[in-house]
Amino acid sequence: MNSTTGSILVTGSSGFLGGNVARHLASSGHAVRGFDLIPPTTHDISTTIGDLTDAQSVMAAVAGFDTVVHFGGIGDTELATRDPGLAASVNVLGTTNIGLAAARHDARVLYASTWEVYAPQISGEIDENFALAPSDAYSVSKLGGEMMLGALHESQGLRVAILRLGTAFGTGMRPNSVFERFTHAAQSGEVLSVHGDGGQFRQFTHATDIALGVERVIDQPWASEVINLVAPEVVTILQLAEIVAARYGSSIEFVPSRSIDPPSAIVSSAKARLLYGWEPAAPFSERMNTYLTQR
Amino acid sequence: MNSTTGSILVTGSSGFLGGNVARHLASSGHAVRGFDLIPPTTHDISTTIGDLTDAQSVMAAVAGFDTVVHFGGIGDTELATRDPGLAASVNVLGTTNIGLAAARHDARVLYASTWEVYAPQISGEIDENFALAPSDAYSVSKLGGEMMLGALHESQGLRVAILRLGTAFGTGMRPNSVFERFTHAAQSGEVLSVHGDGGQFRQFTHATDIALGVERVIDQPWASEVINLVAPEVVTILQLAEIVAARYGSSIEFVPSRSIDPPSAIVSSAKARLLYGWEPAAPFSERMNTYLTQR
Repeated sequence: MNSTTGSILVTGSSGFLGGNVARHLASSGHAVRGFDLIPPTTHDISTTIGDLTDAQSVMAAVAGFDTVVHFGGIGDTELATRDPGLAASVNVLGTTNIGLAAARHDARVLYASTWEVYAPQISGEIDENFALAPSDAYSVSKLGGEMMLGALHESQGLRVAILRLGTAFGTGMRPNSVFERFTHAAQSGEVLSVHGDGGQFRQFTHATDIALGVERVIDQPWASEVINLVAPEVVTILQLAEIVAARYGSSIEFVPSRSIDPPSAIVSSAKARLLYGWEPAAPFSERMNTYLTQR
Repeated sequence: MNSTTGSILVTGSSGFLGGNVARHLASSGHAVRGFDLIPPTTHDISTTIGDLTDAQSVMAAVAGFDTVVHFGGIGDTELATRDPGLAASVNVLGTTNIGLAAARHDARVLYASTWEVYAPQISGEIDENFALAPSDAYSVSKLGGEMMLGALHESQGLRVAILRLGTAFGTGMRPNSVFERFTHAAQSGEVLSVHGDGGQFRQFTHATDIALGVERVIDQPWASEVINLVAPEVVTILQLAEIVAARYGSSIEFVPSRSIDPPSAIVSSAKARLLYGWEPAAPFSERMNTYLTQR
């Protein structure tokens, strides 16, 4: 157990990102417990089963922990768009419950938010002071959670750090992610469908690098702040398709673009590098090779 | 019944502002029904009893209406600060439920938000494009509602107008409003307590003027937009105390300022004046005289 960090509750620990973070923190010597609505598929993280929208369950679960690493919530943007009430409940009310419980028990909160809260970019890079203008239910609800934690910081002195994460990838992603869609199609001998011209780009950030960032932030002297945690490399959707297609000998087709996709943007993680020495521990090509090998 | 407007459901119709708006719209010839968690104290507005956080109740209540005027929610900033989970549930999830029901039934939504969503003002006047940075649970939850309606506009074509209202006053306010506090103290022969030096100011906007603004917006050709509805006159808390003290022969004392109060700001309603010909129908002094006479 890391003596400066104390015990850590990781919410969403049965999910893709929360699970990666919980396992990384446990393997690096931290005392970790999980909290999730559903049991973990592996038995390496002891997990409290509970619902973020149930204030009493959350209050009881947080008791005794020094740090809450809050990755729980609705992370599937398509699900949030289909059921915005669910996104509002889990991501806004659920995060409010986490903040209230942490304030009561004098725990600090590290909250996993998203680069998608930022306004469309005109020029330059997006730093943490860039304008906010989320336009879909997922990113609205994530910003709602940020703002409620900010209100609890003001009114109750809650210690909270907000991480705005890049589009995450890694082993164990949801089937509707573009990585899983491409790989599943390629492995099934199908054509890979690219929406639009494939020129839209993302700064894909590997789950391991996000876990390393979380560890850096919670192990350093604590400050309440907002930190972008977004890999610097820019990869177009077409480039991603080409990497998968090259591996499996697949072909690529172009289909109409989807209005649901957030616009491309370039997000700066200069603050994370400066304050926490964080940057991805491996380039995208290497992370992608590992992902495809494990797939 | 106004033929261009159709039938109107007013949420929060048993409350102070929603009640004023519902009665005004009914008296000006609109077909109005109320929706509230508690029955109205008077019988002039037929009311559906229901809970905004119950998606099915809201879906059923909105069916058949052309317009939803959404004033329901937690409007008491002190209550929201004490119970942020309640504010998140009712103001964010409840407003999401209203938006989903309106989109399903092809109704338009007029949403009562607040000037308190704006960032602290450095200079100039605050128009509708000013930066947003709510810092307490009430204003965070009101902006959360705005943003969820915006997401439903994007994803489902919901027609929505956001009114950002000035600090409202009028007959029937909550006992913890500064108007009621001062008047109750004066009528009880007590000293009026002013927080800080009383130099903080507000653009107090009378409930009748807010109701007139709602009527203007719903009776005009509809556009999805954000509109400040804030009276132009600036009144300091000390001036307010002096008006009440002069009426009752009270004295005034100064007590430490409260960190909960939002900072002073000057909000412009030029857009409401230009697009809807809205401005308060009477000056503050006259509205205040009416309020004190009815008190």
